[in-house]
Amino acid sequence: MSAEIRIVLVNTSHPGNIGGVARAMKNMKFSQLHLVAPKKFPHVEADSRASGATDILENAVVHETLEQAIADCHFVVGTSARGRHIPWPVVDPRELSSIVQGAGDKRIAVVFGREDRGLTNEELHLCHHHVHIPSNPDFSSLNLAAAVQVITYELRMADLYAEQVEQQKPQWGTEWDIDLADSADLERLFAHMEETLVDIEFLDPDNPRQLMSRLRRLYLRTVPDKVEVNILRGIMNATQKKMKD
Amino acid sequence: MSAEIRIVLVNTSHPGNIGGVARAMKNMKFSQLHLVAPKKFPHVEADSRASGATDILENAVVHETLEQAIADCHFVVGTSARGRHIPWPVVDPRELSSIVQGAGDKRIAVVFGREDRGLTNEELHLCHHHVHIPSNPDFSSLNLAAAVQVITYELRMADLYAEQVEQQKPQWGTEWDIDLADSADLERLFAHMEETLVDIEFLDPDNPRQLMSRLRRLYLRTVPDKVEVNILRGIMNATQKKMKD
Repeated sequence: MSAEIRIVLVNTSHPGNIGGVARAMKNMKFSQLHLVAPKKFPHVEADSRASGATDILENAVVHETLEQAIADCHFVVGTSARGRHIPWPVVDPRELSSIVQGAGDKRIAVVFGREDRGLTNEELHLCHHHVHIPSNPDFSSLNLAAAVQVITYELRMADLYAEQVEQQKPQWGTEWDIDLADSADLERLFAHMEETLVDIEFLDPDNPRQLMSRLRRLYLRTVPDKVEVNILRGIMNATQKKMKD
Repeated sequence: MSAEIRIVLVNTSHPGNIGGVARAMKNMKFSQLHLVAPKKFPHVEADSRASGATDILENAVVHETLEQAIADCHFVVGTSARGRHIPWPVVDPRELSSIVQGAGDKRIAVVFGREDRGLTNEELHLCHHHVHIPSNPDFSSLNLAAAVQVITYELRMADLYAEQVEQQKPQWGTEWDIDLADSADLERLFAHMEETLVDIEFLDPDNPRQLMSRLRRLYLRTVPDKVEVNILRGIMNATQKKMKD
């Protein structure tokens, strides 16, 4: 696998779970752990549950916000239960692995939410795709380390199987000529978009409804490259300039 | 899946792990847990780690020996690290799942060993096949519940994929609430877009270069629905109106 994959845990309550995640990651040969505002870290329970994967805990990067943790990533996938307000593209862990296999030399984040209530809608709307582990509908909530184990296992399996067939599928099934935009590019794009939509009075700041969510979904789903983002921002600049004329 | 699958744990030391296994099983819709000479069971730590899968603990069957636990099974698979003295047929969890899918109406046992040293050679030689989770060779030992999670996840995936073969998978892997736009909608969108881009002087009709091609590729790739197309056209209408003000 040529992609660089980080596991991001948001607001984890129990330090033991952070240790369990570190162990699960190292079992599948992953090493980049990013923590967003963990309740207790570092912690002796994390070290204990890591069972020797303490190097991963020592190198873990702690952030204040999810935006910071994913800013330089090209493809962000949030773990989600089914049945959100606005449907978002959902893959299962196997489909995720095949996307990642095809992604080439990219930075990818897989984001896991809180033990009791997962990711918020706002956090999920920072993600290009969602991944759902197809668990028992009547008992769907996996332990955090177990969820990370399943996802990293699938990523590793895809890697091992790909090595076997020596199949290198490039992004979008063809050679792409331009680098993909990262999350920071996209957030600047959305901020600019929102500003422009207010300027042209299409978006009412006092009654925004779901407009920005729908637009985020549309543009994130397409996984834009840097030139495409520049074109979109150029259109907005031209719109704003024209109005001042 | 028509096979009847039991999970067998041999000589588990930590009751918390038995609870973790019960939770992992129930997450993947398995219910039959058999315990061979557990060190401490029942136990409050098992109940606590089960997080609501206590029905599985209450119905767990305790045996004195592995032979008793598998006596009525037709196919027995033991989890194993690589490199045993006598080579035995080894499958990975995905191959195991496809064997189980094809097994029909049989009783199948998947046997997991001790936390620290797995199954003995003697116990492994009671098994038809061995299953090996392809973990990091330098850090290969999974937590017991994590190992059960991976195996039961694979068994469930095989089952779900077998069910899906005859079903159409919905667009974007989830129920979408809006009809997709058709080509006529999209061509109207692109015509309107081109017109608006000329109006705001972002597109020079005498030197259009690849702008419309790049925009077509971006929006076609995302496969927009009808509401999304209406939003985009609404933005263009608002832009055009604003310029006339």
